[in-house]
Amino acid sequence: MKNAERTSWIRSHLHDSQIDALVCSLPCNVLMLTGYAPVIGTAVAVAFADGRVSLIVPEDEVDLVQHSWMVDAHAFAPGSLDKLEPASRALVKPLKELIRLQVARIGFENGEVSQPSLYSAVHFYSGSLSLLLAECFPHATLAPADAILTALRARKTPFEIERLRLAGRIAGEAFTKCAPSISVGTAEVAVAAAFRSSFATGLLRNTGVPCCDGYAWCMSGANSALAGRAYARSGPKTIARGDLVLMHANSHADGYWTDITRTYCAGEPHDRQRELFEAVFAAREAALQQIRPGASASAVDQAARDALRQRGLEAAFTHSTGHGVGFGAISGNASPRLHPASPDILETGMVFNVEPAVYFDGYGGIRHCDMVAVTASGYELLTPFHCRIEDLILPMEA
Amino acid sequence: MKNAERTSWIRSHLHDSQIDALVCSLPCNVLMLTGYAPVIGTAVAVAFADGRVSLIVPEDEVDLVQHSWMVDAHAFAPGSLDKLEPASRALVKPLKELIRLQVARIGFENGEVSQPSLYSAVHFYSGSLSLLLAECFPHATLAPADAILTALRARKTPFEIERLRLAGRIAGEAFTKCAPSISVGTAEVAVAAAFRSSFATGLLRNTGVPCCDGYAWCMSGANSALAGRAYARSGPKTIARGDLVLMHANSHADGYWTDITRTYCAGEPHDRQRELFEAVFAAREAALQQIRPGASASAVDQAARDALRQRGLEAAFTHSTGHGVGFGAISGNASPRLHPASPDILETGMVFNVEPAVYFDGYGGIRHCDMVAVTASGYELLTPFHCRIEDLILPMEA
Repeated sequence: MKNAERTSWIRSHLHDSQIDALVCSLPCNVLMLTGYAPVIGTAVAVAFADGRVSLIVPEDEVDLVQHSWMVDAHAFAPGSLDKLEPASRALVKPLKELIRLQVARIGFENGEVSQPSLYSAVHFYSGSLSLLLAECFPHATLAPADAILTALRARKTPFEIERLRLAGRIAGEAFTKCAPSISVGTAEVAVAAAFRSSFATGLLRNTGVPCCDGYAWCMSGANSALAGRAYARSGPKTIARGDLVLMHANSHADGYWTDITRTYCAGEPHDRQRELFEAVFAAREAALQQIRPGASASAVDQAARDALRQRGLEAAFTHSTGHGVGFGAISGNASPRLHPASPDILETGMVFNVEPAVYFDGYGGIRHCDMVAVTASGYELLTPFHCRIEDLILPMEA
Repeated sequence: MKNAERTSWIRSHLHDSQIDALVCSLPCNVLMLTGYAPVIGTAVAVAFADGRVSLIVPEDEVDLVQHSWMVDAHAFAPGSLDKLEPASRALVKPLKELIRLQVARIGFENGEVSQPSLYSAVHFYSGSLSLLLAECFPHATLAPADAILTALRARKTPFEIERLRLAGRIAGEAFTKCAPSISVGTAEVAVAAAFRSSFATGLLRNTGVPCCDGYAWCMSGANSALAGRAYARSGPKTIARGDLVLMHANSHADGYWTDITRTYCAGEPHDRQRELFEAVFAAREAALQQIRPGASASAVDQAARDALRQRGLEAAFTHSTGHGVGFGAISGNASPRLHPASPDILETGMVFNVEPAVYFDGYGGIRHCDMVAVTASGYELLTPFHCRIEDLILPMEA
């Protein structure tokens, strides 16, 4: 059976929280529960206490489900020419057919979440889904299941880590191929577009991935310092000789996400730039060395922060050292949180980013963001490319 | 005062539904209420019964708000190195400071919505925001405000239509520039990537637009028939001579969205292809001629459907003729709905798409999707490019 660990974890979490059925529609949770990354966002996954999972999928997406490890898929029609009604109404019949329990405790999504953008828009049921559950199962107790979902998303099975390894490989090909597009006089938005195109065309290079895509941003010179904000953004500025050029990307393969940053130097670095590169790489190395099952996530953060403090750069590292990624991409609240105040303990199979950085307003910034998976003895780097300072120095023609 | 009509409409809708304050966090609603398109999705807009609107914006996004027509912006810090808590906790103070009403009726988002993807991920408060409102304002009544929000999103002010006109112009430049990238032997994903790059680099061509971007898909030959599903998708297939090549796009300028389809013919069309083009254009013309204030949305749909029926093609037109767009992109449930069962009546300022189409499994499909705004006397075409059959026939080298 494909991805049996996931079934086992679902069973264990539902058992511990005495939930009989868990109903999810956020695409990141549907992916985690079924291996299927919804396109429009109307698909619903139902997990049962015995570990079984069913997927209610819009008929238009049925063909795509074959790429997941899910087998029990039920088609529904969220829209028709006969009548106009919201998609939730079309869920009544399949939900009632699937959930036969008369008196049950039904878990649902109620808390904050960062949903990665898999299509030009995402359909959200918002509060309509819990209202629908109350209507369909009037004798059931509805229980917010966000804590369970957060925990279930934090660890990845070997099957899922393989998908993330592949996503990292496709992203690595794009970075390797597109770094030379960083050239003097090219606009940030044009550089970013080149990287992004390469994520999308990744499926031409990798048979078996029906859909891959992503986002990329380029921030150069003083703009690279702005990457310390909670988002990246490319602008019309053109690359100048000597610029730090921070490339941030979130790409995905079949819905499994990466979170990657590489900072290049457009030409040979000045002394100050080289010192900053060395500081960020020392922080990276210090953090990586802490990663093993049982380590505290805050200790990983502290190791990176200490390495920068030793160089007088602690104040320039304005965010946490990392957070969970994989089913999502950019949420600082995804477990495990490598944050000074984090209570999280690392476990085998957890996947997160490690993103030490320094930012100086008006000067520039360097961030190096990798993805790692916790292994039995340490960690596996899922983004093994452009990981040495010399890889990041781009020769610029005179 | 910029965009005064919006203030007036907000006041009128809140008055009619006796809502004292309306609290929204979905980016499409924040944009509609404030003119600001949130990046991460943590911003919150609060509209009051007197028409005033305030924006609670993450400190990292404060600089971007200057591009909106919003003036009353309050910064908050959704994350810090000192403590780990969800963004909603950081809203307590600014919400209490803004909403001074002791006993009030507070509107909130509770229904289904399609949120366009403005960044690699979108933060959703989900149920946490209504719980927070109940905690902060224990004497208030919470009222789902989805019907008001749907109505407020349906009509656009002259200021907003100008933004959509600009979004349409940037998209038109991309289509005009990139149509020649549709060439024999090029993969669909590569064609799509070229269009998408051109949306993103639109800001180099248009001063004053700090952020524009978008999504594009290419579906060629028999794949073009699959565009009749609720989503588009590009694949590894290469363009062949004689293919119908359906290009679908959702692009945006500062958060104002387009929904555009053009179907090209890779070389001179065969007789059957030309008949289908003529049928779709006849349906388009019939639909457009119905558009004016007071017209029923279902009559516009019927006009397109009748034109296809006269040619024996009604069964090939499997979806509705259009839906509201602008603050969102792809939701068939956005008002006005040009659908056989629609009760909607067109009003001046409504913006929607008109997308007649024919799809034949295994053969191919043609869709032509424009955006229009309802004017006092008829309609304005917001996507005035490649609107004649001869524009869509691409010469292919021998």
